[in-house]
Amino acid sequence: MSKTYHIYISYPQGETENNMIKVGIIGATGYAGHELIRLLYNHPKVEIIHLSSRSYAGKKLSEVYHNFTGILDKKLAELNAQQMADDCDVIFFALPHGLAAGQISEELLEKTKIIDIGADFRLKDKDTYKSWYKVKHSAPQFLEEAVYGLCELNRDKIKHARIVANPGCYTTCSITSLAPLVANKIIDNSTIIIDAKSGVSGSGRSLSLPTLFPESNESFKAYGIGTHRHTPEIEQELSAIAGKDIILSFTPHLVPMNRGILTTSYASLIKDIKSNEIIEIYKEYYKDEKFIRIYSQDSFPETRFVRNSNFVDIGIKTDPRTKRVIAVAAIDNLVKGAAGQAVQNMNLMFGIQEDSGLNAVPTII
Amino acid sequence: MSKTYHIYISYPQGETENNMIKVGIIGATGYAGHELIRLLYNHPKVEIIHLSSRSYAGKKLSEVYHNFTGILDKKLAELNAQQMADDCDVIFFALPHGLAAGQISEELLEKTKIIDIGADFRLKDKDTYKSWYKVKHSAPQFLEEAVYGLCELNRDKIKHARIVANPGCYTTCSITSLAPLVANKIIDNSTIIIDAKSGVSGSGRSLSLPTLFPESNESFKAYGIGTHRHTPEIEQELSAIAGKDIILSFTPHLVPMNRGILTTSYASLIKDIKSNEIIEIYKEYYKDEKFIRIYSQDSFPETRFVRNSNFVDIGIKTDPRTKRVIAVAAIDNLVKGAAGQAVQNMNLMFGIQEDSGLNAVPTII
Amino acid sequence: MSKTYHIYISYPQGETENNMIKVGIIGATGYAGHELIRLLYNHPKVEIIHLSSRSYAGKKLSEVYHNFTGILDKKLAELNAQQMADDCDVIFFALPHGLAAGQISEELLEKTKIIDIGADFRLKDKDTYKSWYKVKHSAPQFLEEAVYGLCELNRDKIKHARIVANPGCYTTCSITSLAPLVANKIIDNSTIIIDAKSGVSGSGRSLSLPTLFPESNESFKAYGIGTHRHTPEIEQELSAIAGKDIILSFTPHLVPMNRGILTTSYASLIKDIKSNEIIEIYKEYYKDEKFIRIYSQDSFPETRFVRNSNFVDIGIKTDPRTKRVIAVAAIDNLVKGAAGQAVQNMNLMFGIQEDSGLNAVPTII
Amino acid sequence: MSKTYHIYISYPQGETENNMIKVGIIGATGYAGHELIRLLYNHPKVEIIHLSSRSYAGKKLSEVYHNFTGILDKKLAELNAQQMADDCDVIFFALPHGLAAGQISEELLEKTKIIDIGADFRLKDKDTYKSWYKVKHSAPQFLEEAVYGLCELNRDKIKHARIVANPGCYTTCSITSLAPLVANKIIDNSTIIIDAKSGVSGSGRSLSLPTLFPESNESFKAYGIGTHRHTPEIEQELSAIAGKDIILSFTPHLVPMNRGILTTSYASLIKDIKSNEIIEIYKEYYKDEKFIRIYSQDSFPETRFVRNSNFVDIGIKTDPRTKRVIAVAAIDNLVKGAAGQAVQNMNLMFGIQEDSGLNAVPTII
Repeated sequence: MSKTYHIYISYPQGETENNMIKVGIIGATGYAGHELIRLLYNHPKVEIIHLSSRSYAGKKLSEVYHNFTGILDKKLAELNAQQMADDCDVIFFALPHGLAAGQISEELLEKTKIIDIGADFRLKDKDTYKSWYKVKHSAPQFLEEAVYGLCELNRDKIKHARIVANPGCYTTCSITSLAPLVANKIIDNSTIIIDAKSGVSGSGRSLSLPTLFPESNESFKAYGIGTHRHTPEIEQELSAIAGKDIILSFTPHLVPMNRGILTTSYASLIKDIKSNEIIEIYKEYYKDEKFIRIYSQDSFPETRFVRNSNFVDIGIKTDPRTKRVIAVAAIDNLVKGAAGQAVQNMNLMFGIQEDSGLNAVPTII
Repeated sequence: MSKTYHIYISYPQGETENNMIKVGIIGATGYAGHELIRLLYNHPKVEIIHLSSRSYAGKKLSEVYHNFTGILDKKLAELNAQQMADDCDVIFFALPHGLAAGQISEELLEKTKIIDIGADFRLKDKDTYKSWYKVKHSAPQFLEEAVYGLCELNRDKIKHARIVANPGCYTTCSITSLAPLVANKIIDNSTIIIDAKSGVSGSGRSLSLPTLFPESNESFKAYGIGTHRHTPEIEQELSAIAGKDIILSFTPHLVPMNRGILTTSYASLIKDIKSNEIIEIYKEYYKDEKFIRIYSQDSFPETRFVRNSNFVDIGIKTDPRTKRVIAVAAIDNLVKGAAGQAVQNMNLMFGIQEDSGLNAVPTII
Repeated sequence: MSKTYHIYISYPQGETENNMIKVGIIGATGYAGHELIRLLYNHPKVEIIHLSSRSYAGKKLSEVYHNFTGILDKKLAELNAQQMADDCDVIFFALPHGLAAGQISEELLEKTKIIDIGADFRLKDKDTYKSWYKVKHSAPQFLEEAVYGLCELNRDKIKHARIVANPGCYTTCSITSLAPLVANKIIDNSTIIIDAKSGVSGSGRSLSLPTLFPESNESFKAYGIGTHRHTPEIEQELSAIAGKDIILSFTPHLVPMNRGILTTSYASLIKDIKSNEIIEIYKEYYKDEKFIRIYSQDSFPETRFVRNSNFVDIGIKTDPRTKRVIAVAAIDNLVKGAAGQAVQNMNLMFGIQEDSGLNAVPTII
Repeated sequence: MSKTYHIYISYPQGETENNMIKVGIIGATGYAGHELIRLLYNHPKVEIIHLSSRSYAGKKLSEVYHNFTGILDKKLAELNAQQMADDCDVIFFALPHGLAAGQISEELLEKTKIIDIGADFRLKDKDTYKSWYKVKHSAPQFLEEAVYGLCELNRDKIKHARIVANPGCYTTCSITSLAPLVANKIIDNSTIIIDAKSGVSGSGRSLSLPTLFPESNESFKAYGIGTHRHTPEIEQELSAIAGKDIILSFTPHLVPMNRGILTTSYASLIKDIKSNEIIEIYKEYYKDEKFIRIYSQDSFPETRFVRNSNFVDIGIKTDPRTKRVIAVAAIDNLVKGAAGQAVQNMNLMFGIQEDSGLNAVPTII
């Protein structure tokens, strides 16, 4: 790596309870919700006010997640968005698709900001939503207003947003690792293929046979071939960068590990260009980004290098034999792919330092 | 699956020691060597005569691999190819590339048959070998004679071969899952991309930091991007089927599991053709093959479905949005990807039933 | 290992359909049921007649377990014990406790033999059963007749049994590794402590949060401390050997792996005796047993050495500092701990070679 | 948990470089060294001055551990204890046993404080050291002065120590979970048995066949039975609490996971006492300890509940059938078992808040 950033820890100066950001989390006991609490608990400018959970209302957080024992013993409540809005500066929704849209109203947005970790406000077009999610969108009036919260691409809009649609896990990794190629018109956009791999926590905490330990351990498979819902989201954002429609192939796979996403993306080059030149283009494109690390030549990411952190690690190589570029990117699906990026969005929305609460060193082991 | 084969167990009738195939294994204590012993031990027509191991010569097999305790306590010897040739009907070489070529001579081949599980006789062109393996080939005079031992494609030649080059693990999975597309001229051969994933046993038993448990467990990565040595092997065989040169992209990845390879291959269709039609083409192409299982529509392989077995499982789908076909294939890298196919080759070379010793049901758990 | 057995493969001579054992399996789609089919499919003297499954009746086996595709495409039926008894020589019950007892009757036993892989007929005392299983036994009249199917200890009774109670997974490992100490009066029986560890397949295929991949992967825990139902079973059998009541501590743990059980057992020595002497006692005790392998001094089992096999591997050491003996034993919980021992029991009951269908080499990788 | 502690984050007030603790780490690229850097990097009162590494001197930390890319690109130096002592307030030794003792001198101690994460200063008796480690101690003159750094037991001595011997991973877990029983004279000390299980990172980063991924994945084993070097360390500390010699059984096992230790300890009760009473005794014993969490009745630790944290989680149960108590404890072997406790020791030695840099929430997934 020829360029590095000093990621420093910010200590609040003279904080009082008055200038802490009051947050509520809806869907607190799913994996994304849990991760959000974990990150926000150590955030220097955040006070966790409300946690709601359909499945565990009435219990204490530490009864559901024993790791919080002695740390945060807050009670989990039934969903009450109105009360949460009254008491909180921002509400995080961490629910399956369809549920957040049903809760959001103008009244709510006048009281609080919304960060939806779910899928409801990511796609700008309600018909595309219906086509991929197989349900009608219940709050299409907010689709235009909602800002797609991929911080590195939409930072300015996020700062002034009332609703931020936190990107999907696969999409964050895919878009960030392809954006410089599309923006710099280096590739034939019709040739983009994204082969993506995720740890099992990406499938959530709901009981299902395929994610039972003996069914997913020691095995590897593809799923959702040609039909995964993150496809239109990636296409939407890369098309916006390209200024014209991009249709691409996206294939997710399940890796027998808890955390991490790695995407291997392929595209045909339309220019004669070398690995080191493309690497420079990436470094330039992301030159002000703390959370995006561009690898030096012939060095590539591994999911462990970003574990428990908000980094996107990207390695790029051109193959003169095939005249293709291969971009490999890694994120932690629960951090940059969900809760971490949600915190980053919150930081932007509230005008505080963008990396607040997100400075942990990746835990390689 | 609309078509199924009854894989039956063959019981030898009236076998005597005289008509047993006498085998020797060089490189018996690597993972491929071990797997070969495991399979041959239960083979009804095989007698294991010699085992050699550089690292453990003088020890008993069961001292190196305790699972053989009470089963096979044979002594491991220093490499002595001449003696092995004198005593054996066939010698399996399971050595790192370069070592088998140094052992093979006309004299040896007059005494015994050779199955090389290593890479030395797979590439027909010695310059291609040198270009990818970075060493000069030491027995190029046998390259033309050696038969590429992908049984389903080269069965007839294998039957009469003196030297069989057992295919690489990735290549077996890649070639079998793309051959019907190439043979039937359905795809633009210049668009082939193979994204491959392997369990860690594929890296062998040599000590190395990247395959230390805490370094590969709970992580996922790509490696050898654009440079993996199985690339020219896949290109050679698919080119032979196509009748003209094919250049393709091949990217291997490491999965935190012991066994299994899954390849996800992409190519642009040059015909308007549906998933079910391609599936039928695959079924027709492999209609007489016991070890190749073509999945029904929208059903795809997982590595566990072939674990400890000699099957190649293949699922295929066309994507009308991108006009691409996606072929997903799974094998056990140590069985069909190494020792199992070697046994299948031996069965062909000795005119016995092709599935002898290869009838175990995959151990899904 | 100073003593080894030659485990040979038996080939049936002149088999006709008439002398094949006709089997039915109730609970065919649980992990034990699946394993039974896997083993019986390759058994030279068995014909699988009926498979029943509550959850998947009407589907084909290969639709539930894709590994059976092209191998065994038999249909799964609703439970009909009477019809099964009419058509089969033996019925295997692989059901949760309480269900087998409800099916068994004198009428059934007049037609067929029964091997219950579940817990219903293991405990001789119906009150002990009620006390640990918290339900009343529904067929106590068969408790006396049922033979506890630990083949190495009860071989002769098993041969003539109509009902065999297949032992629990933990119990098989615990009892075999402690029996020689108890039988030879070497230890203070009141000091026995068994610390047991099992792979996750031991928890079965039912959906549950604790066995969801991200909840059990990369973690280790104890469970059922002081209350696990295998405790009275171990006590019953060791007490029978001792000729007086033994009360012991048994603590199971969950290991993040699919298969395998390892028990580490402790007891205080009442004699001054060395490791090598105890090892000789074990070798003598099990001198005719093919499936029990006693390790040489300072060598100890690992679960991988028995994976997919019917072996019990045992290592023993005395500790002069503490005057204790430590016995470490490993089995495959689905083979010797369930389906494999069930097959061994069947072989005994039908007077065929005891290791028929059980000769696979452990798959160390 | 009926009692909980609020673990709060400390923000330094008005820190300047002058009052930062300057640290050096010897053995920076082993797993314990890496973990130390990870924790110290985010410690509000620490400045990392020197890192030394035999294997990687001359390289940058981020070249060895890519997770540090863009975070800490410090160069790794050859070992130079004198210079480190000149420049640093404290030196952490994270070396295999025998190496730290060779470096420590009165001269060094006059300049800097020492925290030895290795084994050299843990045992008070040089003959015991020689007997278990099979080498002569090279700096026995410091054995008396060195303080055994189990913070919860020796807090006051640690505060004034020049040399702290950081406890072993197994020992921390074993001693903390047995100390209340020994101190309160509840058990027969001659009956203590500790059955311990560790993730593979406990074996360090040196290449070895047993810790190669395919050799330790999907398997479980005991090792070092009766001979593990943590045994005399546990005995020494528990004997000190008891006021008389304790001899106990300790058996470590290897779990196929990266991090975590769980110990299951057994002892015979000498009083008639119930689970809830013992739990209260534990709570009282550790009532001021932030990092020790006592579980409520019938609730037990799992290693994931403490992952990446400095907690010791303890669950206790008495078994009226056997009149034994079973204590189950979990730690993260690299944090409380190594680097975390080293930081805690440093905090104590420098009079800063004991939990500085140690407030991360356990990452359950």
